Amino acid sequence: MEFSSKLLEQAVNEMSQLPGIGKRTALRLVLHLLRQPKGQTMALSNALQNMRNEVKFCKSCHNISDNEFCEICASHSRNTEIVCVVEDIRDVMAIENTSSFKGLYHVLGGKISPMDGIGPHDLNIDSLVKKVKEGKVKELIFALSSTMEGDTTNFYIFKQIQSYNVVTSTIARGISVGDELEYADEITLGRSIINRIPFEASLKL
Amino acid sequence: MEFSSKLLEQAVNEMSQLPGIGKRTALRLVLHLLRQPKGQTMALSNALQNMRNEVKFCKSCHNISDNEFCEICASHSRNTEIVCVVEDIRDVMAIENTSSFKGLYHVLGGKISPMDGIGPHDLNIDSLVKKVKEGKVKELIFALSSTMEGDTTNFYIFKQIQSYNVVTSTIARGISVGDELEYADEITLGRSIINRIPFEASLKL
Ligand SMILES: [Zn+2]
Ligand SMILES: [Zn+2]
Repeated sequence: MEFSSKLLEQAVNEMSQLPGIGKRTALRLVLHLLRQPKGQTMALSNALQNMRNEVKFCKSCHNISDNEFCEICASHSRNTEIVCVVEDIRDVMAIENTSSFKGLYHVLGGKISPMDGIGPHDLNIDSLVKKVKEGKVKELIFALSSTMEGDTTNFYIFKQIQSYNVVTSTIARGISVGDELEYADEITLGRSIINRIPFEASLKL
Repeated sequence: MEFSSKLLEQAVNEMSQLPGIGKRTALRLVLHLLRQPKGQTMALSNALQNMRNEVKFCKSCHNISDNEFCEICASHSRNTEIVCVVEDIRDVMAIENTSSFKGLYHVLGGKISPMDGIGPHDLNIDSLVKKVKEGKVKELIFALSSTMEGDTTNFYIFKQIQSYNVVTSTIARGISVGDELEYADEITLGRSIINRIPFEASLKL
């Protein structure tokens, strides 16, 4: 692609670093910004900079937060003895959207995936095990996607905590095997939380 | 969509102002930036700001340029008597990519579209007519897309300049090189028959 402007070229190149955005799409987006008032570009770039520089991760659950502890962890109306283990903050958003869960979350930040070089120590697993060891948690709900990596991660955590006095469960497989949580419809996702089954029973399925 | 962070929400909202980027996609892109080093977000936002604040439009052809006149208009090796009229700078890029045209361009910035409230005075038509009136142009090539709006725009410009000593042409419409005849739409196939060229001339292409 030959550009008539270095400034345009740099903007397109940076935009096309984003996943799923090719050069052509990036050019279309950037030309759109050029046709809009300057304020739109300033608002976008400032919002991205502010977010990247200021956003925090909750010290307890690792959810994205503007404060030291996220609103869910800081709330007095949540059941702190039930913790739902998820991969990503998008999963927290998806489950919150169903209004079917009133416990807390623990965001792992990914799944164990040797193929991608992601081991247990790249994830927020130690802090979860620590919570269990301290006896603060009565039930852990595994809500990872049911892929090989998700199952591996569930099992790794399960082995770490099985000698402690904690009930483990997984969300019901109302969601198609292999589907990402964030794309599930609310009702299915809500039911899969309500109908969660003991983790050990899930191993026999 | 419920966000656990205002900073995140603002970034997603601004990102989803871009055409074809919904809230879910915006969230995916923004979370990607959060996982990358800060430098990537800074580079993106700075490139967008610099482009939006600094980019110029060529005083002659309205192409995007870092200088008063674009590289094509400023070049001494282009035929300044042939002007190709296009809608958008992406069309300039596409034609330049073919290396088949050594004249100049004139970027209209859109097509006449009463439905979208775009009239002739919203486009760079006056400056084109002025070039023709000044006798600088021997041939105008209309290279707009062959939609109703494109045809309307061509015809509007043609009426403005027909009394002047200028040759007008439109780019050939036909079956794409390599395409099967049976999959071509009827209108394109019809035009490619009506506008057939001598076989011996085609051998020289
Ligand atoms: Zn939290
Ligand atoms: Zn120019």
